[in-house]
Amino acid sequence: MDTEKFRNGAAYVGGKFVPFSEAAISVADWGFTRSDAVYDVVHVDDYRFFRLKDHVERFEASMKKRRIDVGLSTQEIEVVLHRVVALSGLSSAYVAMVALRGRPRVVGSRRPEDCTNHLVAYAVPWVDVISKEMQETGATLWISEHPRVPDASVDPAVKNYQWSDLTSALFEAHDHGYETAVLCDAEGFVTEGPGFNVFVVKEGRLVTPDRGALPGITRKTILELCAELGVPHSIGPVSRSDLQSADEVFISSSAGGVMPVRQVSDGGALPGSGGTVFRSIREAYWSAHKRPLFSTPVEAVQA
Amino acid sequence: MDTEKFRNGAAYVGGKFVPFSEAAISVADWGFTRSDAVYDVVHVDDYRFFRLKDHVERFEASMKKRRIDVGLSTQEIEVVLHRVVALSGLSSAYVAMVALRGRPRVVGSRRPEDCTNHLVAYAVPWVDVISKEMQETGATLWISEHPRVPDASVDPAVKNYQWSDLTSALFEAHDHGYETAVLCDAEGFVTEGPGFNVFVVKEGRLVTPDRGALPGITRKTILELCAELGVPHSIGPVSRSDLQSADEVFISSSAGGVMPVRQVSDGGALPGSGGTVFRSIREAYWSAHKRPLFSTPVEAVQA
Repeated sequence: MDTEKFRNGAAYVGGKFVPFSEAAISVADWGFTRSDAVYDVVHVDDYRFFRLKDHVERFEASMKKRRIDVGLSTQEIEVVLHRVVALSGLSSAYVAMVALRGRPRVVGSRRPEDCTNHLVAYAVPWVDVISKEMQETGATLWISEHPRVPDASVDPAVKNYQWSDLTSALFEAHDHGYETAVLCDAEGFVTEGPGFNVFVVKEGRLVTPDRGALPGITRKTILELCAELGVPHSIGPVSRSDLQSADEVFISSSAGGVMPVRQVSDGGALPGSGGTVFRSIREAYWSAHKRPLFSTPVEAVQA
Repeated sequence: MDTEKFRNGAAYVGGKFVPFSEAAISVADWGFTRSDAVYDVVHVDDYRFFRLKDHVERFEASMKKRRIDVGLSTQEIEVVLHRVVALSGLSSAYVAMVALRGRPRVVGSRRPEDCTNHLVAYAVPWVDVISKEMQETGATLWISEHPRVPDASVDPAVKNYQWSDLTSALFEAHDHGYETAVLCDAEGFVTEGPGFNVFVVKEGRLVTPDRGALPGITRKTILELCAELGVPHSIGPVSRSDLQSADEVFISSSAGGVMPVRQVSDGGALPGSGGTVFRSIREAYWSAHKRPLFSTPVEAVQA
């Protein structure tokens, strides 16, 4: 096996395993031209997938909702994921699985039913999306004026690439000197940020938004850890002022884990990584990566 | 020049001219993974671009709104478009220009400001998206229950690939045995369909929706032709019942021209291509393609 060529990552595209640098899709794939794709991301840490089954299960649920069928069983998808990580030789990786609508079998068709769906997967070196420094001090979070796309128009439980509203909010945050952003729905309730869930702690109770947000696997893990740690927690409405008057705020994503917030726009100072609830959850979160229940060793499978 | 290899179309990707079959983007391009891209499509008919300046102008306005800068002047973009058509040798082509966010120059950055934006363009053989037969009988149009993404969340004037709501509506239409769909906003007003604008004629007056819709170049042409033909016309609110009780309904897109509708869900029978206003507009529309004001001959420019 030529490990050198996979050093920057390995991918599965068009039924073949290729170096990540060669992983490309046609400019005419509807996964691109109609953003007609669903995806999921799983973290490999120390040669172990974290909650692989949960991610693949959500990925399959997303495909089903969008009527995308890549023609592979759950096990076959998992084999592909193991294989891209094994090929890359990476101990710590960001592993993506993407299901695309593809292109129509009938020239000129504008019917999604006529397309050949397909799977893309890749493993690339893990990069902390939040710097080590910011993981200690905490990020600054701008509450965007830009409304999140409503759940009725685009189901937020289907992990998708339609980031236009999130990108608008990011620009808005950066224009105001903030590091990242969170969006509210049309009624003013907090939803999520670009790629992450939000958590608010007030008087020892943790709440995460019940609308406009992906049910994150990291979020799920945090809620489970709250139960173990005896932290009162719920999924419920979070208003803009709940966020501004919180004792602690933090965010989570599979691509970054649990990350503290030190400042919310028009809110008071926050403890960042010094928050009591944050500290106990972060510690428990990274410990959970070693649990057999949550982690799956990467296998050097032959695909 | 090896014309054979460009027979199925020619493309411009990564600063190079390549056969369309080789036109691909990285699976990590944010144009894909965040659908952070804008595009436009222009029709070449009989070796002439139709309203090229209008399309490039709208494309540049879309880029500006999304803060995408591909580093090319208007003239340079036009040279690329002429070149892909000339390379393809096609007399009748669908010509796309796409501006993508690209990938971050800083590894691990999640800031769109850190990305190198780039242009993709291609010319492929023109295909009637509506069959000749349906262009006579007219299409059936399902009024979707799926709400269009609000203008406040995603600006519909920026031509984009975020088609999830449009795709949902298409599936819904097909499930009900209809050929295509139109979406309403949360207040129940008609917006647009997947890739087209809608027109309603009642008692000789033409109206096209004032919300949730791309200001189409074909729509603009139709409104200008209405003025010439003496057809009273306006851009205004169109309710679901306006659509259902219309005398004539038709749709328009740059990729298909003006196309009649023969049936709207829960509406009465419509004349399809037999409608008086439709017939005069369709004739005027295709005649307009020959006007020097609207058309630009494809030049065999060297890029």
